Amino acid sequence: MDNTGIYVIDVSRSSYAIVEPLPIDRVIVDDSFWRPRLEKLVKITLPLQFLKIQETGRLENFRMASGRVKGEFKGLWFNDSDVYKWIEASAYALAYRWSEELYKMVDTAIDEIISAQQPDGYINTYITVNGLKRWVDLAWSHELYCAGHLIQAAIAVRRSLKKNDLYVASLKFADLISDTFGWEEGKLKTSDGHPEIEMALVELYRECNRGKYLDLAEFFIDIRGRGYVTKTLTLRQFFLPSPEYLVDRKPIRELDDIAGGHAVRALYYMAGVADVYIEKGDSKLWSALESLWRKVTSRKIYITYGFGSRYEGEAFGEDYELPNERAYSETCASVAGAMWAWRMFLASGDPKYVEVLESILYNSALAGISLDGTRYFYVNPLADYYGKHQRMPWFECACCPPNIARLLAYLPSMIYSFSKIDKGIMVNLFIGSRAIFEVNGNRIAITMDTMYPWYGKVFIRMEPERVDEIPVMIRIPSWVEEHEILVNGKEFRGEPGRYIKLVKSWDRGDKIVIEFKMRPRFIQSHPYVEANYGRVAIKRGPIVYCIEGIDNREFDVRDLIIDPSTANLNEVFREDVLNGVVLVEGEGYVNEDMYHGDKLYYELDVESVPKAKKVKFIAIPYYAWNNRGATQMAVWIRSRINVLGRIGD
Amino acid sequence: MDNTGIYVIDVSRSSYAIVEPLPIDRVIVDDSFWRPRLEKLVKITLPLQFLKIQETGRLENFRMASGRVKGEFKGLWFNDSDVYKWIEASAYALAYRWSEELYKMVDTAIDEIISAQQPDGYINTYITVNGLKRWVDLAWSHELYCAGHLIQAAIAVRRSLKKNDLYVASLKFADLISDTFGWEEGKLKTSDGHPEIEMALVELYRECNRGKYLDLAEFFIDIRGRGYVTKTLTLRQFFLPSPEYLVDRKPIRELDDIAGGHAVRALYYMAGVADVYIEKGDSKLWSALESLWRKVTSRKIYITYGFGSRYEGEAFGEDYELPNERAYSETCASVAGAMWAWRMFLASGDPKYVEVLESILYNSALAGISLDGTRYFYVNPLADYYGKHQRMPWFECACCPPNIARLLAYLPSMIYSFSKIDKGIMVNLFIGSRAIFEVNGNRIAITMDTMYPWYGKVFIRMEPERVDEIPVMIRIPSWVEEHEILVNGKEFRGEPGRYIKLVKSWDRGDKIVIEFKMRPRFIQSHPYVEANYGRVAIKRGPIVYCIEGIDNREFDVRDLIIDPSTANLNEVFREDVLNGVVLVEGEGYVNEDMYHGDKLYYELDVESVPKAKKVKFIAIPYYAWNNRGATQMAVWIRSRINVLGRIGD
Repeated sequence: MDNTGIYVIDVSRSSYAIVEPLPIDRVIVDDSFWRPRLEKLVKITLPLQFLKIQETGRLENFRMASGRVKGEFKGLWFNDSDVYKWIEASAYALAYRWSEELYKMVDTAIDEIISAQQPDGYINTYITVNGLKRWVDLAWSHELYCAGHLIQAAIAVRRSLKKNDLYVASLKFADLISDTFGWEEGKLKTSDGHPEIEMALVELYRECNRGKYLDLAEFFIDIRGRGYVTKTLTLRQFFLPSPEYLVDRKPIRELDDIAGGHAVRALYYMAGVADVYIEKGDSKLWSALESLWRKVTSRKIYITYGFGSRYEGEAFGEDYELPNERAYSETCASVAGAMWAWRMFLASGDPKYVEVLESILYNSALAGISLDGTRYFYVNPLADYYGKHQRMPWFECACCPPNIARLLAYLPSMIYSFSKIDKGIMVNLFIGSRAIFEVNGNRIAITMDTMYPWYGKVFIRMEPERVDEIPVMIRIPSWVEEHEILVNGKEFRGEPGRYIKLVKSWDRGDKIVIEFKMRPRFIQSHPYVEANYGRVAIKRGPIVYCIEGIDNREFDVRDLIIDPSTANLNEVFREDVLNGVVLVEGEGYVNEDMYHGDKLYYELDVESVPKAKKVKFIAIPYYAWNNRGATQMAVWIRSRINVLGRIGD
Repeated sequence: MDNTGIYVIDVSRSSYAIVEPLPIDRVIVDDSFWRPRLEKLVKITLPLQFLKIQETGRLENFRMASGRVKGEFKGLWFNDSDVYKWIEASAYALAYRWSEELYKMVDTAIDEIISAQQPDGYINTYITVNGLKRWVDLAWSHELYCAGHLIQAAIAVRRSLKKNDLYVASLKFADLISDTFGWEEGKLKTSDGHPEIEMALVELYRECNRGKYLDLAEFFIDIRGRGYVTKTLTLRQFFLPSPEYLVDRKPIRELDDIAGGHAVRALYYMAGVADVYIEKGDSKLWSALESLWRKVTSRKIYITYGFGSRYEGEAFGEDYELPNERAYSETCASVAGAMWAWRMFLASGDPKYVEVLESILYNSALAGISLDGTRYFYVNPLADYYGKHQRMPWFECACCPPNIARLLAYLPSMIYSFSKIDKGIMVNLFIGSRAIFEVNGNRIAITMDTMYPWYGKVFIRMEPERVDEIPVMIRIPSWVEEHEILVNGKEFRGEPGRYIKLVKSWDRGDKIVIEFKMRPRFIQSHPYVEANYGRVAIKRGPIVYCIEGIDNREFDVRDLIIDPSTANLNEVFREDVLNGVVLVEGEGYVNEDMYHGDKLYYELDVESVPKAKKVKFIAIPYYAWNNRGATQMAVWIRSRINVLGRIGD
């Protein structure tokens, strides 16, 4: 691919990247699902976040660090990172949707940050304003975490806004970090309690091609899991992060489980490891990543593709530990999971990673932000039986709002990519859009039209400058049972869970018409998941559904029992509901007399058969819940399924 | 009742006590279940705990506070309380089982504590050794919490060991607290983040009859729930205790829920409220207590009678939030629950409180200590799918070991009591024992023989000094289906869940023979309990059972499916297993082909009926688990029950 442009992840020179993403400015999203979301991102979400950043003293902290004003540090010690993440999101969003207002806000923030840089390059307002010693409490201080976000923001601003000032500042800071940390005699041999610097340093290396940043990233990957991080903990608090929490239990190449690991930390770390792999190609790193991927996605992920099942430590649980009402599934963990998935895909070209990325996007991540783009979930439970869970305009620990903004901002860069192996154009996500590929000196415009995720019909129109034979690879999701692929009317057949490779001499106006048949499906979970035994969930295409109280006033959502064989599921697109969604309707039952006097525990009476009445229910996409006020919600519904079956011979 | 002796709770002059416990030295426990446990308590558990107290610097902290040695404070800031709780447990245990060795240990500890008292009466080694300001961080400092335990220890030593020195010291400290806190102008208007002082001050009032201590206890009850406690929080840590956690959300008379409340804090508080009610009789306190009792026991208690479902904040959850693998159910919370239940019973005479007390004793509390009396659970899960959960000889935060020791030490005082209303002897717990009542100048010796909790047969022999008509009230547990009560061969019939009142002129040798028929029963839980839907547990008498991997090597405990109608439950007493238990054996099924390739989520196939094979299983009492090494365990077993039933007319 000869495309130049604004890369979010620039693997164009990376030896072990199988896939190259398309530059973000080469894609225009233009559909009814995502376009309004990206418009809101630039017009509403990011400007509102800037106001919150100002109101809460986050910029003021930089002014204090630079000496422009006097005062006391405000808020949490890692609040700098929110400003950086917001800048990064804004910079990439501005690449494809200009807003003078937003640009000025970014400029203001950058000015404050640069002024707060210390003569030797160090930037951290908490340490500077409070006159604290640097790097002494790294397990908890987030100094390198904040530095990582600063570097990512600086790269985004340089790439997208063509402004170099923050980038120059971040290089100076990176040099200071490089002089301070490393295996060499006299340098600090530890890392930050919160991974993040790793991804940032690899991307910085990609931007400036200085190998020392890549080596430093590798050092931060390798130092972890040997207890160095945990050792820097100072006994300041009752809650003492464990090696598990800090992802410091075992070195990456031996890491077999991440139970107890803070989900965002663990996922950022693994995304960083993937980045190092993409540059250095150490196959042991790759097998560690693959085996952790398997562990996470087959044992520790929610059906909504949320990560982290414990409030305590915001952590991954044991295998199959996936409570619904108390799911943590932090929005940041979904963003981190998407980053990891995307890097795994770049490293391998395997569509399974895109499928997870897509599932995160349409479910747990999108749930993190309200339909109007102004409020956020920090925690994303799969059930809310008391209607207590509400999105908030901001948080004291406000990691999630700018993080979900980052993920949305990245979106256009993930729809298409280029396979270095097949030398082909890859269609990863089905999002109405126009894209420009430059391959072998040829310019190929692609237009995709679709009502996905509501309908599986996708129209792709090819417009090459000149006729050229180039593979076009289209991902077929693994849930697809029936599909149809027509190229100029000629039928092709692919395999679910794989890319279908369409090789032909493409001419202007060539049409690819795809249909993935969608129907609402009942999903069961592995019986080891304590909370889901005897329950079913509903999924349609990539979208997980839930039952909200507001649509189902006849019963408590906990009382609904679905008999899958008599549920008569029906789907209906409603443009007027929740900005346009496919609703799933069905029939279930509610018991009328089984609670034995409302007792918590009671003796089972095998003779007693509870009386049940039929009810109709309506399910909505999970991501859209809590957009119509406080109400009950549940993803996993009690069901009448045959859990035992026939007795063996 | 004219009994004098060593009271644990002395309500002999309390106007609103309906029930008086028998002094602890008037009861000799003599059965095969409890006697060995009380022997181990004095011979093994308490001496070993003293060694741990010494080894971990807990006594050293007192030596530093008194200036006897120099050094740095060791351990957690509330470690003094462990020493006090250990003294209290030892003092009461010494009342009925003498040990010179243990007495000397108590003496040593008392000497260190008294020397550490400051001239104005203040005792807290963390504050004193570190030269910190007193009472400034009360939400977190545990100063009054430690003071409360000191006072309880001092009362125990005075009552049981007839030593006054610690008592004199504690009075001086109580006076300082009384001069420092209160509604009056110039006094501090707040309380400790951890309730405990309330129970202690009421008992101190009962001991010395000085009303000011009772008033102070009432002040600490009333100040809570108005935000005063939360306000003293200093922003020192990431984990900021909430008003819910601190039981500071609403004043007691308006407190409608304790979701999010630290279980031990909430339960200690309610026990203290009950103590104040017993003295002052405010009916609004009583209705608040009753309604919270209902809330807790019908919505927030485990089948094992453990309290607290969240690791985060060691807290009560929402209604029906009762996960099994991640149950918290802290041993201290069971102890606290027993204390609350016992006080509710003293205030009302209602057997439902004794039933909860008994259930706590035989299940969640007893699980807190190993059969050999040397190791402890802090957390008591209802499932351990990976055999990761092990009892420990001690903890950094060692609240549980001396607390379970206290509860065991109290045991003889709770078997019998005296009803002030019926002027009758109450038999609350079925534990082989001899007791002496003095009523109306008559001395009545009672001997109880039983194999309870394994068999429901109870033999009671009356030996009054002179023939006298006095009611003897025997509690019939609510789970009893069939019972037989014979008084000298004559049949009486009571009502399950009530006391049966036997009124007769008792003569020497009169015999009461009771039989409560026991059988293993399948218990179901309210379908709103997410983790238990479609599952059953086994209970027999007061004992909850569990399946341990070590007895069931043929299958993973998560794979066992019980069809209650074909389970063929069978019981067998095994003297050689786990110090003698009734095992429950039965038949269940294991599916052979249902995991759909081990997938976490998969589409439900209503046509596919999994193949199952029959297996035999063995269940043991829950309290006895993890006494034969690390192994899987589960209380709630997957079942094949008809959750839907017939469709309504």
